[in-house]
Amino acid sequence: MPQLSLHPDRLFPADPDTRAIARELYAQVAGLPIVSPHGHTDPAWFASDAAWTNATELLLAPDHYLFRMLYSQGIDLDALAVPRKGGLLPDTDPREAWRLFAANWHLFRGTPSSMWLDHVFAEVFGIAVTLDAGSADHYYDTIAEALASPAFRPRALFERFNIELLATTEGAGDDLKHHKAIRASGWKGNVVTTYRPDSVIDPEHDSFARDLARFAKLSGEDVGSWQGYLAAHRKRRADFRDMGATATDHGFLSARTADLSTAACEALFAKVMGGKADAAEAELFRAQMLTEMARMSLEDGMTMQIHPGATRNHNARLFASHGRDKGADIPRGTEYVEALRPMLDLFGNEPGLTVILFTLDETTYARNWRRSRAITPPCALARPGGSTTARRACAASAK
Amino acid sequence: MPQLSLHPDRLFPADPDTRAIARELYAQVAGLPIVSPHGHTDPAWFASDAAWTNATELLLAPDHYLFRMLYSQGIDLDALAVPRKGGLLPDTDPREAWRLFAANWHLFRGTPSSMWLDHVFAEVFGIAVTLDAGSADHYYDTIAEALASPAFRPRALFERFNIELLATTEGAGDDLKHHKAIRASGWKGNVVTTYRPDSVIDPEHDSFARDLARFAKLSGEDVGSWQGYLAAHRKRRADFRDMGATATDHGFLSARTADLSTAACEALFAKVMGGKADAAEAELFRAQMLTEMARMSLEDGMTMQIHPGATRNHNARLFASHGRDKGADIPRGTEYVEALRPMLDLFGNEPGLTVILFTLDETTYARNWRRSRAITPPCALARPGGSTTARRACAASAK
Amino acid sequence: MPQLSLHPDRLFPADPDTRAIARELYAQVAGLPIVSPHGHTDPAWFASDAAWTNATELLLAPDHYLFRMLYSQGIDLDALAVPRKGGLLPDTDPREAWRLFAANWHLFRGTPSSMWLDHVFAEVFGIAVTLDAGSADHYYDTIAEALASPAFRPRALFERFNIELLATTEGAGDDLKHHKAIRASGWKGNVVTTYRPDSVIDPEHDSFARDLARFAKLSGEDVGSWQGYLAAHRKRRADFRDMGATATDHGFLSARTADLSTAACEALFAKVMGGKADAAEAELFRAQMLTEMARMSLEDGMTMQIHPGATRNHNARLFASHGRDKGADIPRGTEYVEALRPMLDLFGNEPGLTVILFTLDETTYARNWRRSRAITPPCALARPGGSTTARRACAASAK
Repeated sequence: MPQLSLHPDRLFPADPDTRAIARELYAQVAGLPIVSPHGHTDPAWFASDAAWTNATELLLAPDHYLFRMLYSQGIDLDALAVPRKGGLLPDTDPREAWRLFAANWHLFRGTPSSMWLDHVFAEVFGIAVTLDAGSADHYYDTIAEALASPAFRPRALFERFNIELLATTEGAGDDLKHHKAIRASGWKGNVVTTYRPDSVIDPEHDSFARDLARFAKLSGEDVGSWQGYLAAHRKRRADFRDMGATATDHGFLSARTADLSTAACEALFAKVMGGKADAAEAELFRAQMLTEMARMSLEDGMTMQIHPGATRNHNARLFASHGRDKGADIPRGTEYVEALRPMLDLFGNEPGLTVILFTLDETTYARNWRRSRAITPPCALARPGGSTTARRACAASAK
Repeated sequence: MPQLSLHPDRLFPADPDTRAIARELYAQVAGLPIVSPHGHTDPAWFASDAAWTNATELLLAPDHYLFRMLYSQGIDLDALAVPRKGGLLPDTDPREAWRLFAANWHLFRGTPSSMWLDHVFAEVFGIAVTLDAGSADHYYDTIAEALASPAFRPRALFERFNIELLATTEGAGDDLKHHKAIRASGWKGNVVTTYRPDSVIDPEHDSFARDLARFAKLSGEDVGSWQGYLAAHRKRRADFRDMGATATDHGFLSARTADLSTAACEALFAKVMGGKADAAEAELFRAQMLTEMARMSLEDGMTMQIHPGATRNHNARLFASHGRDKGADIPRGTEYVEALRPMLDLFGNEPGLTVILFTLDETTYARNWRRSRAITPPCALARPGGSTTARRACAASAK
Repeated sequence: MPQLSLHPDRLFPADPDTRAIARELYAQVAGLPIVSPHGHTDPAWFASDAAWTNATELLLAPDHYLFRMLYSQGIDLDALAVPRKGGLLPDTDPREAWRLFAANWHLFRGTPSSMWLDHVFAEVFGIAVTLDAGSADHYYDTIAEALASPAFRPRALFERFNIELLATTEGAGDDLKHHKAIRASGWKGNVVTTYRPDSVIDPEHDSFARDLARFAKLSGEDVGSWQGYLAAHRKRRADFRDMGATATDHGFLSARTADLSTAACEALFAKVMGGKADAAEAELFRAQMLTEMARMSLEDGMTMQIHPGATRNHNARLFASHGRDKGADIPRGTEYVEALRPMLDLFGNEPGLTVILFTLDETTYARNWRRSRAITPPCALARPGGSTTARRACAASAK
C-alpha cells in the first residue's frame, strides 16, 4: 500500500529563497500553544469527556466539505451516514459509509480537506498508508481502537494539542449547561463561549420562534417589547461573559447596518414579532440589530465579529430533507462600504469598539477597506505582496 | 532577419522545481489526440475540403482578437480586409492587408494572440523568421504556397493535428447540410455539431425573425404557439443529435433562469412573438428558455453549456457598419447564485443533468460556486493553488 | 541602532531567473529622467522656492496614508499635527508629533508607505539608521538641517531628481498664479498644470458655490446659463493650456456618462444652479459633464483622465472636524461598461480623442475592458502574466 507521508514543506513556496523564509517563520510559531478564537467545536465534548465511537461519526458525517463534494459526484447522503433533518440517523452501517468515502478519497486530491485530514490521519492517529478502498478497514479499525483509549478522549486531545484557549459558539437560546459543567468539573482546560444571537435576530431563520421562546425564558425578560428584547440581549450577553465569552458573532447574508429612531425601531419590532415583516423589513431589522450589538459591545467590551456573504441553504431539496448547514452554502460578493456606514457614523471613532470583519470573497481586498478606530485590517495593507491566505488570516485576526 | 523560435518551456513556471513538474505533466499529454468540444470552426471547411487562399483570408480577417487591437490603435477595418455587414468584402488587396498587420505585429508582444500565431507560423507553416514589415511578403507567399498544396486542405490538417473529435456550433435555423455532406462523403473525420439556439430564443437578437422562420420550416412545427415552439426545439435537438451533437450552448448576457407557470409562459411567449416584449420581458423569456433547455437536456441527455457575461456589440458604429462579433464585446461581472436558483430548484439534484458554466470573469471563482449533482466545478476546489488558466480549463471541462 | 539599508533588489521577484530579467529591465530605465504626468505637488513650492521647515510639516502632516493608519490604531490627529478644517493647525510641537510617528513606525512594516519613506530617508536625506523612538530626534534634526540648506529647496530637488516634466493639478477656480510665477521667474523647470474641474461640476462638492463664483470671475462668462457655463469651461481650459496643460482630470464616484438633448441639459442645469437638484439629478449632471468634457477634448486635444471608484469622506466625524481628504476615502467596485456607453457611442471611434481610465479595483481587469480608438489599455492584454502592479501601471499610462 502507498505510504502516507506529509512533506515538511507542504503549503510553503516552491521558490528556495522564500521557502527558507517560510521555514524560519514557521519554526518560530510551530511549538506555540493554540489560541482558537473561533473553534467550531461542541462544548458537550469537553463537558462529558465521552469517547467518540468511530471515524464516520467523528470525521465524515459532520463535515459538510466532505459530503457535499461526494454528493456532487452522485453519492447519496444516506450512504455516508449523514444525519437527516432533526438529527435522525439513516440506517447505514458506519463502516460501509467509511468504505464508500475511502473509495472516493482521490476526489479530494489537492483540496484543503485532503491536506487537513492527511495531517489528522498521520499525526493524530499514526497511520502510515494512504486512504483508499484497500486501506479503508485498516483506517476504520485503527481509528476506532484509538478512540476507545483514554488518550483520545476530548480532554486528553485538548491537552495533547497544547490548546491554551478554545472559544466555542452558542446561540442566544442556549442555557450554556455544557460550559457550566466544564467549570464545575474542575478540569483546567480553558474553554469559553461566544454569543451568536442570529436565530433570535433573523425573523427568517427557521428556528426563530423556538429560540426566541428559550431566549425569553433564560433571560427572564419580556421579549415582546423592544426594550425588553434589548434587555434580554444584555442579560444573555452577561450570562455568556460569565462563561468566558469575550466576543459576539453575527452571520447574515449582508453586512447592512441601520440607525433608526426609537419609534421606528419599536414599530419595526412589532411587525417582526407579529410575523408581519416582509423580506425588506426582516433585512432592516437585522441591520438595526447589528447596530444595537455594536452599541452593547461599547457597553460591555465584547469584540464584535461580522461574517456576511454566505447564501445559505441554496439547495431547497437538501434543506427540506437534511436541514441547515448541509453543504449548500455559497459564497457571494458582499458590499461593505455603504452597508456599514450607519453603524460607523455612530460608533466608528470609538476607541473602545473592536469589530472583526470576515469576508468569503478575497477580491474584496482589492476594493473595500477603511481605516477607522473601530475597524482596521492592518495586514491587508501591511502585506501587499503576501498571499491571499496570509492576508485573509491577518484580516480575520486584526486588531 | 530575427529567428522565430518557440521556447519549449513557454507558459511554464519560471521556478525550476515547478517547471520540472510542468514539463513532466505536459509530456504525458502532449502526444494525445485532440478532443475539441467547443471548436469554433466552420463545418463547410470539412464538407467541401476546399483550399484556403491566403493568410489574410485565413488568419487575419476572421480573428476579432487581431483586428480589434489594431482598430484600437487607429487602423481602419477596411484596410485589414475585414468583411462589412452582410459579408461584403472591402476592396482591399489581401497582401496589402497582411503587410499592414505585419508592420504592427509588435503590438501583440506578450499577448495570447502572439503566442498562438507564432506557434501556427513555426509549427504549421515551418516559417523560421519573425513577422515584421520586412518579412511580410515572405510570410504571405509561404503561406499561400502551402495552402495551395494538398497537405494544407482542411481534412489533411484535421488528420495531421490528430483530432479525435471536433464539435462545431450551429444555430437552430441551420439545416446542417455541411454536417450531412461530411457524413455522406465517407471521410472518417469525427466532426459533430452543437445546438446553439440563441438567435431563436433572444427576441433582441438581430437575426431573431429570420432565424425563427427557418426554425419553423426546418422543424415543421407551428412556432406561433408555446407548445409548438417547444416541440420545434425538441425536433431540432433530435436533428442535431443525428449529426452527432452531445451538447447545447447558450450565450446570453446574464445566467438568469426562471420557473413560470404554463399560463405565464404562454402569455409571455405571445408578447414576444407579437413583438411587444419590452427589455425586461425579453430577459424573462431568455431566463425561462434556459430552464426549458435544462428540462429537455434531462429528456435527451445532452450536456448544457451556459456562458454568460459578454456585453455584445458595444460599439454602435461598428455594429452598424460591420455587424455582430466584430470585436466590441466586453466581459462583464456576472451573478450566478440567484440567477440559477429557479432552474436548480427544479433540476439541480437530478443525476441525469450535466451543466457546464463558463465565466469570463476569473474573480467569480473567489465567490460563486456550488456543489450539486448538476453543476460542479471540482477543479476550482481541487486546485486551490493552481493557475487561473488551469482552474478555468477545469471548470469548463468539469462534469 | 539598526542600520537602514535598502536592498537593491527590493520589490523584484524572489525567483533568480525572473529577478535577473527585472534587474536588466530596471537598469535600462533607472537613469532616465522622470516624466510625472500626475504629480500631486503644490506649484507654490516651485513658485516661491521657499525652504520647507521640518519633517512633520513636509512628510507627516500632509500624508493621509500615514496618519490614517496611526488614527486607526487610536492615535489622535491633533497629536500628529494634522491641520483641522480650514487649515487651522493644532497646537502641537512638530518634534513631538514626529516622535509619536517614529515610535509607531513599526506599524508600517511591509507597506508601500514604509518602502517609499525609507527610500526618502536613505537616498534623499542620507540617514543611515532605521526610524524608531530612539532615532526620532536624530531624524528630526538631520532633516531640519538639510531643509535649511539651499540644496533642499524645491527647485534644487526638482533638478537633483532629474525631472523632465511635472504636471500638477488645479481646480477650475484657480487663478494659476503660481504657474505664472514659475514662468515669470525664468527658472527652467518644466512644471505644467492639469484642469480638474470637479468642484464646479459636482453640485454635492462642499466647495461648489465658492469655486463656481471664482470660476465665473476668472472666465468672465455668465455661468448662470448652460451655454455660458460651457463657454466658461472652454475659456478656463484655454487658460490652463497656456500654463502647459495637456490633460484634464475627473474624479467622481462613478464613471457614468450621459447624452442628453440640449433642452434637457438646460433644464437640468437650471435645477442644479437653483440648488434644487436631488442626488439622482446631481449624478446625471456629473454624467453629462463628463460627456461635455470629452467633446471639448476633441476640440482642444487635451487628454481626458477619469478616475472613479473612491467613496470620499466616509468618516462623517473626521470630515466635520478635518475636512476633505483626511484618510477616510475607500475604494469601491466600479462599473465601466454601461457607464461609459453614452460617451463612447458619441466619440468612441474618434481618432482624436484620448481617454485614460484609472481603477482603484484591480479585479476590474478580470472583467471590463474594451478596445476602441478612444479607450484602450493595451498592457492589460499585452501582459497577461504580468503582476497586477505592472498591469495597473500600464493601464494608467496607456494611450
